[in-house]
Amino acid sequence: MKKTTDYIKVASYEGKIGEIKKVLLLYSGGLDTSVMLKWIQDQYKCQVVTLTADLGQQHDDLRVIKQKALKFGAKEAIVLDLEEEFAKEYIAKGIKANASYQGDYHLSTPMGRAVLGKNAVKLAKKYGCDAIAHGCTGKGNDQVRLDGYILTHDPKMKILAPVREWAMDRNEEIKYAEMHGIPIPASVDVPYSDDDNMWGITWEGGEITDPSLIVPVEKFLTTYTLPENAPDKAELLKLGFKEGLPISINGEKLSLAKLIKKLNQIVGKHGVGTFHILEDRLVGLKNRGVYEHPAAHVIVEAHKNLEKYVSTRQLNELKEQMDIKWGYLCYGALWFDPSMEAINAFNDQVNEKVTGEVTVKLFKGQATVVAIESPYALAFASFNNAEGYDFNTNTSAGFIEIYSLQMKLASQVGKKTEKV
Amino acid sequence: MKKTTDYIKVASYEGKIGEIKKVLLLYSGGLDTSVMLKWIQDQYKCQVVTLTADLGQQHDDLRVIKQKALKFGAKEAIVLDLEEEFAKEYIAKGIKANASYQGDYHLSTPMGRAVLGKNAVKLAKKYGCDAIAHGCTGKGNDQVRLDGYILTHDPKMKILAPVREWAMDRNEEIKYAEMHGIPIPASVDVPYSDDDNMWGITWEGGEITDPSLIVPVEKFLTTYTLPENAPDKAELLKLGFKEGLPISINGEKLSLAKLIKKLNQIVGKHGVGTFHILEDRLVGLKNRGVYEHPAAHVIVEAHKNLEKYVSTRQLNELKEQMDIKWGYLCYGALWFDPSMEAINAFNDQVNEKVTGEVTVKLFKGQATVVAIESPYALAFASFNNAEGYDFNTNTSAGFIEIYSLQMKLASQVGKKTEKV
Amino acid sequence: MKKTTDYIKVASYEGKIGEIKKVLLLYSGGLDTSVMLKWIQDQYKCQVVTLTADLGQQHDDLRVIKQKALKFGAKEAIVLDLEEEFAKEYIAKGIKANASYQGDYHLSTPMGRAVLGKNAVKLAKKYGCDAIAHGCTGKGNDQVRLDGYILTHDPKMKILAPVREWAMDRNEEIKYAEMHGIPIPASVDVPYSDDDNMWGITWEGGEITDPSLIVPVEKFLTTYTLPENAPDKAELLKLGFKEGLPISINGEKLSLAKLIKKLNQIVGKHGVGTFHILEDRLVGLKNRGVYEHPAAHVIVEAHKNLEKYVSTRQLNELKEQMDIKWGYLCYGALWFDPSMEAINAFNDQVNEKVTGEVTVKLFKGQATVVAIESPYALAFASFNNAEGYDFNTNTSAGFIEIYSLQMKLASQVGKKTEKV
Amino acid sequence: MKKTTDYIKVASYEGKIGEIKKVLLLYSGGLDTSVMLKWIQDQYKCQVVTLTADLGQQHDDLRVIKQKALKFGAKEAIVLDLEEEFAKEYIAKGIKANASYQGDYHLSTPMGRAVLGKNAVKLAKKYGCDAIAHGCTGKGNDQVRLDGYILTHDPKMKILAPVREWAMDRNEEIKYAEMHGIPIPASVDVPYSDDDNMWGITWEGGEITDPSLIVPVEKFLTTYTLPENAPDKAELLKLGFKEGLPISINGEKLSLAKLIKKLNQIVGKHGVGTFHILEDRLVGLKNRGVYEHPAAHVIVEAHKNLEKYVSTRQLNELKEQMDIKWGYLCYGALWFDPSMEAINAFNDQVNEKVTGEVTVKLFKGQATVVAIESPYALAFASFNNAEGYDFNTNTSAGFIEIYSLQMKLASQVGKKTEKV
Repeated sequence: MKKTTDYIKVASYEGKIGEIKKVLLLYSGGLDTSVMLKWIQDQYKCQVVTLTADLGQQHDDLRVIKQKALKFGAKEAIVLDLEEEFAKEYIAKGIKANASYQGDYHLSTPMGRAVLGKNAVKLAKKYGCDAIAHGCTGKGNDQVRLDGYILTHDPKMKILAPVREWAMDRNEEIKYAEMHGIPIPASVDVPYSDDDNMWGITWEGGEITDPSLIVPVEKFLTTYTLPENAPDKAELLKLGFKEGLPISINGEKLSLAKLIKKLNQIVGKHGVGTFHILEDRLVGLKNRGVYEHPAAHVIVEAHKNLEKYVSTRQLNELKEQMDIKWGYLCYGALWFDPSMEAINAFNDQVNEKVTGEVTVKLFKGQATVVAIESPYALAFASFNNAEGYDFNTNTSAGFIEIYSLQMKLASQVGKKTEKV
Repeated sequence: MKKTTDYIKVASYEGKIGEIKKVLLLYSGGLDTSVMLKWIQDQYKCQVVTLTADLGQQHDDLRVIKQKALKFGAKEAIVLDLEEEFAKEYIAKGIKANASYQGDYHLSTPMGRAVLGKNAVKLAKKYGCDAIAHGCTGKGNDQVRLDGYILTHDPKMKILAPVREWAMDRNEEIKYAEMHGIPIPASVDVPYSDDDNMWGITWEGGEITDPSLIVPVEKFLTTYTLPENAPDKAELLKLGFKEGLPISINGEKLSLAKLIKKLNQIVGKHGVGTFHILEDRLVGLKNRGVYEHPAAHVIVEAHKNLEKYVSTRQLNELKEQMDIKWGYLCYGALWFDPSMEAINAFNDQVNEKVTGEVTVKLFKGQATVVAIESPYALAFASFNNAEGYDFNTNTSAGFIEIYSLQMKLASQVGKKTEKV
Repeated sequence: MKKTTDYIKVASYEGKIGEIKKVLLLYSGGLDTSVMLKWIQDQYKCQVVTLTADLGQQHDDLRVIKQKALKFGAKEAIVLDLEEEFAKEYIAKGIKANASYQGDYHLSTPMGRAVLGKNAVKLAKKYGCDAIAHGCTGKGNDQVRLDGYILTHDPKMKILAPVREWAMDRNEEIKYAEMHGIPIPASVDVPYSDDDNMWGITWEGGEITDPSLIVPVEKFLTTYTLPENAPDKAELLKLGFKEGLPISINGEKLSLAKLIKKLNQIVGKHGVGTFHILEDRLVGLKNRGVYEHPAAHVIVEAHKNLEKYVSTRQLNELKEQMDIKWGYLCYGALWFDPSMEAINAFNDQVNEKVTGEVTVKLFKGQATVVAIESPYALAFASFNNAEGYDFNTNTSAGFIEIYSLQMKLASQVGKKTEKV
Repeated sequence: MKKTTDYIKVASYEGKIGEIKKVLLLYSGGLDTSVMLKWIQDQYKCQVVTLTADLGQQHDDLRVIKQKALKFGAKEAIVLDLEEEFAKEYIAKGIKANASYQGDYHLSTPMGRAVLGKNAVKLAKKYGCDAIAHGCTGKGNDQVRLDGYILTHDPKMKILAPVREWAMDRNEEIKYAEMHGIPIPASVDVPYSDDDNMWGITWEGGEITDPSLIVPVEKFLTTYTLPENAPDKAELLKLGFKEGLPISINGEKLSLAKLIKKLNQIVGKHGVGTFHILEDRLVGLKNRGVYEHPAAHVIVEAHKNLEKYVSTRQLNELKEQMDIKWGYLCYGALWFDPSMEAINAFNDQVNEKVTGEVTVKLFKGQATVVAIESPYALAFASFNNAEGYDFNTNTSAGFIEIYSLQMKLASQVGKKTEKV
């Protein structure tokens, strides 16, 4: 194992030994960040405060994590409830943007990193920390997001990313853990790692990474039912929306965070919302992930359909293009870039009319929008009845004559010229 | 029933009584076009030649249709085999464009209209027809496509669209049919109508049209299995691609038309490829359709994934935007606009490297891409092995410092100014 | 001369003889609308109220026009001051969108039609009119704009477009005018026609229409100096902006309407802002126009530069794309489509920081932005000074390694495969 | 002055002392690269071969540069004529893309870097060099372009960027030069630096960099006339195009490289083509440059107009968006990314019909397209005459009824709902 000092610090924001007095460590309770908790104290000779964010995860016992942090020497161990903030200020923007990246990945981790980065700076300042440490590797997207978001909120903050720095391989890390009394989890040789919040669980590692392999999903997808084991009977679900956001399930009104968590249970039972996605990481690597996000998938599908129903064709085309851009920016670690604020303003305007009710059929891994109602529907039928006039089919030929004019010209002009 | 002459012809391309000597009627064998066959002879006092295109439909007996046409007075009844032309010159472009419109509608009818429009002009000229007649209504997209494509290939051709012209309602039409010995099909009071070719079957009418109703799909979706009745065991399927087009199923090489038809059977058995789509018609009406296109859906999904694997992130974002535009243009009756040719050239270039094999899992209505292989994969792993260098994680912090610079600046500049 | 009744009314919104009791005529005082004023009274046997909108035109004496209208039988002749409304609710949105179409046409007429269409409906209702008449031809954009905007604000309003209807050619029109005592202007055989408001004057007709001819601009561009006659000495001009809108000229604060009118004088003296534009009309015809809009051009140029200075590269690219879309929609008669509202919300957000001062050099037809200052400038220099850190050039190589990764991969993967 | 070894090499492609035997130095003959020529020999103890590319610069005597290189110890001094390759394989693509970035910067340097990077690798291999050295700083775009393009063509090549590495400030560099007998140019204290090729000259440094200052352009813009000193009489110029590329000036046919060089003289005399551009560098810094590119500006303007004349409105909107993307990619060091190849294929297709003649009026800094002719013009007039039918204005009302339908619906639906 090399010493830290053998490694290069290139970026001006990287914390150097000797300069750091108190570090806020983003702590998950897992092996990596537990080792880090010790390692930072050793290497940097400084105090460590841990922050564990509650974003609506479903597996973790946050009290146990807190005790663990204190046991390994944390000066203080903070558990921060960000559920409603995450739902209202981050996921809500995602819903209005039909949050998706390169297919049906609904961007749970990228949005989670944004709320975490911002709050980490707040906490670091509150606790007098001059650096923030995180467990991200040097090959992924999350380092770009966390480093970027932390510095956006405080450009003078220093950052430690021990996995980028230390020279420990997996075996050395385990040795280091054993040496310092850090328990090795039973799952240490399972190659899959996950990130979990209310909007989704993301899985990476092992066979998942290599797109040429078929992933044995049954090994790790244990939170929700697999399609194969889902009920043989379909279920209908009614989602109520107001101004772009879901407000009720089958008529029952719920806060956004509560609605998402409840919906995960209902939808997850049908094996809906699990996707294999091959994706382009921001740093240029191709990667495959497996994602579980039952509620996210159903909300985005329902929202997309309702939005399409109240918007013009012109706007629908533009919104589809905009949603792609939003997805690339959100995934691409630019949550706080002014581009996102501008697109969000666009989305807010579009969503003013996204009010109504969407019926979704859930069956063995599939969610199908089977009915939509909205007072703002651009339905000619309702217009017609209300205003007393009919669609005038006499006009169609005139429309076509003008609509096709340039296509016809282009075709003829080409022909004539070729003859010459 | 009013006379034709009470009705207005606005567009200069509409055929007028007295001017037309011989009409090419696009003939499906159904009630509407059978009535038309008689009605045109009556009203226009002219000869009618019928054209029935074989685009790989699976329900129709084309010999029976031919006999029917002759029986109702057609001067000649042509059945034209367009299967391979449709596959190679139309569907192939669609595959490279991941053909989709406002969701998972893979544009079977819009592409079918393009090949039909072009060939109708060829045939009309060959048979000395001065007009082409079709059965499209005045509220739909197909009139825009057929009128537009016919005139693009011959701006002097006249067009008759009797449904836009005649003043018959459904009952009058049936009376007219009875009067002329045209058999009334058993399905005359079924409100659903379909359009069928190898790339997909599209359903409209009845409850389908009104998005607030749940459609009783079991009443008409009888070609392929519904997800509920699909096998309980998943099936893996290997699709081979070369330069953007599928060339083999589980190793067996097939022409594109044959591959699509065979794939429909394999995939259809699993209830995959049926979608409810709320869509914006070109003429401004919202409409819902139900689409069955098993092969189309699996091919597009597989193609999208393989293409993503061999393209850069930069290109993937651009291609996603381009595919949306392609879908709006294809649906929007602009197949022969130079815009499409330009996008197709873009797509051909991108697809030069879309070669490889995609494994798809089929299960009760779902198609999941579970594995992908390609010699052109932008996989760092293979690059690494071949070239002997590793992803350099030391560079990440430097990347992040520069990548996030303007987001950080924007955040600080705002803050400072607000203080002032 | 045929009778009106020989002509077809296709669209359901066209007013029919016998149904119309009182018409609001959009009246310019020229030959066409003066003939119309008589013709409508003759043909429709109904009352006519005239509306002449004051949008900041500079040639017309609105009192004279009012007298003329009354003389030719108008029941009432309204002159409506829309200057500030036009500036604040229409042009202001255009400025934030860097309003341009297919080059440097800054969309004066399309914006003018939007404010006019909306107010025409208000007035028609106020005066109890059941129809609105306008002088647009059947080949242009303005009919699409006026018809569309009027019906958007009242779908039951009827519309008369006499030029589309009557069968008079130029000679017949002049005869009709003489017969009814309508004076024939001296310019009746000048082929050029113009549309004039504070944001710009647009010229069409004669040699302008045919792009292969060189237009004798000196014949009609008499409002502002031609570049050839502009002063030999350049002038510097300081434009102050606040949240995207110009608020001062050389330090003097002015309302937007006043600022535009004053700027036209200052800038026009230098022959700046006159453009030849070949454009695609909405109805498919190519047309060339010559436009004079000194203030518009300088404001858009200055705004574009200031906006670029306070926005990130990411946002600048997106905004450029959005501005193109805005231009096509505005020109394309979709001012009141929800797409425009959504883009305007996007633009408002971007423009929150577009505050500062822009120095423009005016010289013989050219406007060059030579200096820009803004408290929101994303200038690293100022960030640097304030925050005490420097641009870290050590990070560049790391940035490049990652930034170029996929381009390198794509290049190598291709090569390797070709060898195989 | 620190030693190289005190500095960090982060990226895996940076050459390390001891590993490098022979370096290809991209040599301009200026102070920086002359000092580098010595410094590399000193530090790396290796041979240096120099490469000076002829891209059509107009100031430099390439024989003198060659002698200089040999005098300062170059093992070989290569002068490489890339004029026609640059014109035909790089600039030609730029013309078809209406090459522009954030305004009227026509991308001379970014395109020059692409041809240089590719050829540098060829030469380095031919001369057995294991590294390529260039004079780019760590704050600019050119390092990203050169490093990226070199590695794209040979991922194993090592790169030296002495200015990023050495710790010399300006004074130290001059001392070092004096010590080694390298002559200090008279212009050493002029703060402006330029990059020069046939497509344009770019200026940076001094007041140019700070957008709040007015640049004293008369100090350095000495190649072409300033608008103030241009002739008082306008000149008309005819540019012939074939398939998107200019082929003749006033009827005289010329190769692309020769045409550009001749056009620079004709246009430059009128002070046309000089622009102040505030731009976003790829590395996140805002920068202003002053650009002189008379021929480039006139060719792009003429091409844009001719292209618009032969393309449909649909295609023109798409092409405008595509051109923006092309500009950002070309500027953004992604010339060899597959995205560019795909856009170039799109552009080639569009340009098949961009054939014709464009007349440009040149006057005191302004270039105005005053006439255009093309056999492929989408001009209705010519279509009309040839095909014998007229634009049917009866159809307009029908077109408008359908075209405006959704805007009207959106407006009414909103109102009705608000009442509820």
